[in-house]
Amino acid sequence: MGHAERRASLREHLHTSGLDALLVTDLLDVRYLTGFTGSNAAAVVVADPGGDAGTDLLCTDGRYRIQAAEQCPDLDVVIDRPSAPAVASRVPAGTRLGYDSATLTVDGLAAVRDAVPGRELRRAPGLVGRLRETKDDTEVAAIRAACELADTALRDLLDAGGLAPGRTERDVALDLEDRMRRLGAAGPSFDTILAAGANSAIPHHGPSETVLRRGDLVKIDFGAALDGYHSDTTRTFCLGPAADWQRDLHALVDTAAAAGRAALADGTPVAAVDAASRSVIDDAGYGEEFPHGLGHGVGLAVHEAPWLSRNGFGTIAAGQVVTVEPGVYLEGHGGVRIEDTLHVVAGGPAVALTRLPRELIEL
Amino acid sequence: MGHAERRASLREHLHTSGLDALLVTDLLDVRYLTGFTGSNAAAVVVADPGGDAGTDLLCTDGRYRIQAAEQCPDLDVVIDRPSAPAVASRVPAGTRLGYDSATLTVDGLAAVRDAVPGRELRRAPGLVGRLRETKDDTEVAAIRAACELADTALRDLLDAGGLAPGRTERDVALDLEDRMRRLGAAGPSFDTILAAGANSAIPHHGPSETVLRRGDLVKIDFGAALDGYHSDTTRTFCLGPAADWQRDLHALVDTAAAAGRAALADGTPVAAVDAASRSVIDDAGYGEEFPHGLGHGVGLAVHEAPWLSRNGFGTIAAGQVVTVEPGVYLEGHGGVRIEDTLHVVAGGPAVALTRLPRELIEL
Repeated sequence: MGHAERRASLREHLHTSGLDALLVTDLLDVRYLTGFTGSNAAAVVVADPGGDAGTDLLCTDGRYRIQAAEQCPDLDVVIDRPSAPAVASRVPAGTRLGYDSATLTVDGLAAVRDAVPGRELRRAPGLVGRLRETKDDTEVAAIRAACELADTALRDLLDAGGLAPGRTERDVALDLEDRMRRLGAAGPSFDTILAAGANSAIPHHGPSETVLRRGDLVKIDFGAALDGYHSDTTRTFCLGPAADWQRDLHALVDTAAAAGRAALADGTPVAAVDAASRSVIDDAGYGEEFPHGLGHGVGLAVHEAPWLSRNGFGTIAAGQVVTVEPGVYLEGHGGVRIEDTLHVVAGGPAVALTRLPRELIEL
Repeated sequence: MGHAERRASLREHLHTSGLDALLVTDLLDVRYLTGFTGSNAAAVVVADPGGDAGTDLLCTDGRYRIQAAEQCPDLDVVIDRPSAPAVASRVPAGTRLGYDSATLTVDGLAAVRDAVPGRELRRAPGLVGRLRETKDDTEVAAIRAACELADTALRDLLDAGGLAPGRTERDVALDLEDRMRRLGAAGPSFDTILAAGANSAIPHHGPSETVLRRGDLVKIDFGAALDGYHSDTTRTFCLGPAADWQRDLHALVDTAAAAGRAALADGTPVAAVDAASRSVIDDAGYGEEFPHGLGHGVGLAVHEAPWLSRNGFGTIAAGQVVTVEPGVYLEGHGGVRIEDTLHVVAGGPAVALTRLPRELIEL
């Protein structure tokens, strides 16, 4: 889907919300609606192009004059800064202008108010964020490509013997990130989590100089950023034959992950998906050792709505791309997390976009 | 300086501002004050520890229980989410609690209000941000180390013949980033700008498949992230002997950069530093081709206050670390930018932390 179609979808929501125009200030929202990728921008999308509220506008600064013209040939581009007040001031008086209270800061709103004195501004949180929750074909293809790239990088690392005793967590993480870049990734989706031995019990352990040893569990949570989209995968390996407790822990998490994936379907409340997976771990007596939500949406942001957790809102819908990532962490011993990125489709089970094997691999 | 001393400095500002406590929601502010590096946290710093407002608190979620205990052994850690409302609700009633309106979103503030109904919340923008503008010795050492690492990576790239016709912009950028990582960087400070030939006239051109050709200007704007701090440098090279226009353009920007560095001193208004450099370019008739500010602060964020621009506020102060980075961009032909990261010291000229040669290098 092109950016113009996305703006057309947004217009319907503007009509429903009684807005003549929306001030778009979040950079990923701007990118989603216009294709502009610079580091400073704001946009206005109007409910009725050519009507009283004028036309859609993109505002950025002089560094991006050429880039904005190239990326947004169909938009009126304003070069001015700061972007949000500057573009808001171009919207005709009398326009019912909404702003995204979920991303605009308190002072950012004050600056916009100062730029349009006397104008009514309406709180309109998450209109674009909700559109972004449902991925169009272009986006699913981009996420699939990122997932395939990440899968290939980890497979290559394993094939090359890169996950082995004697290397440091940091060495292995650099190796994996380097492989993703050489395969065309812009970089990792987020700071790679690579945690060996007792460190694997720390859910978000950054790679350290810890040396991998035979017998360690090694948890790798990583992703590739490609064309603005992301992947997110976790696998936990064992260096050498697994001890019984490692094998049991892995099997428990594997079962919980499978239950989460099976529950992930169009129309299911997000809290029910979380519960389907969490109950497996609760029933095994490890509820306290699973201290995070089950998953999250993946798109232009690697972590975005919907948020799958015990108290999560809303319902899973076809078109969403989300992770399922239960984990159990035994402090001082080790932990296991298994995570996939999946595409929710109508009338069938969600499709895993990350396709690495899930059984415990003993290296 | 330790995190406890930084919180002590903040307490003085809380007293001056008539606040009993500050809700700290920006993650870099939290890191600055507590040392905690996780991806979800909020903190409260009280004006009088042990007084009516209680004690300093750090709040994060269960993923970071172990990490928070390790990184913040001197702090009371609360495990709950969402962090900002959760930690605010622990502050005793009757406390004059401030929040950072410069970084808290409109909805974030609403969630905090809902958590402490009837409580007075006071707008207190940028208290921690202003402390962060002045770097302590620990921070300057960290930034210097990042700058030295980045310098070494670019020198190694040049020594290895890595900047040469036939390679793509993307190849060279990956090579440079890889060298930074191998030297110990967590990664690049920001997306590397590597722009050859006519692309060098695009101030923020991302590396593409464009092949470097003899005769090209090649602009490289890059930095290293190390221990949470950053460097930021730009150099512009010529592949082979420079044409007269390339040499003249480089000399102009070099003169403007030197004028900016010379003006960068304790007590000088930021707008005057911008003007010192910009006037060189204006006088040469290229004012329109320098479409950005002169520089910015560098610290836990690679782009942070102070902002050096034509309309910038405030005055340069000893302890700041800022960039000076004029550029001139001739659309369709090529551009030159020269940027250093400098430490402002009392009673003398600012000290460049980035130490690569600035003269035009013809490769």
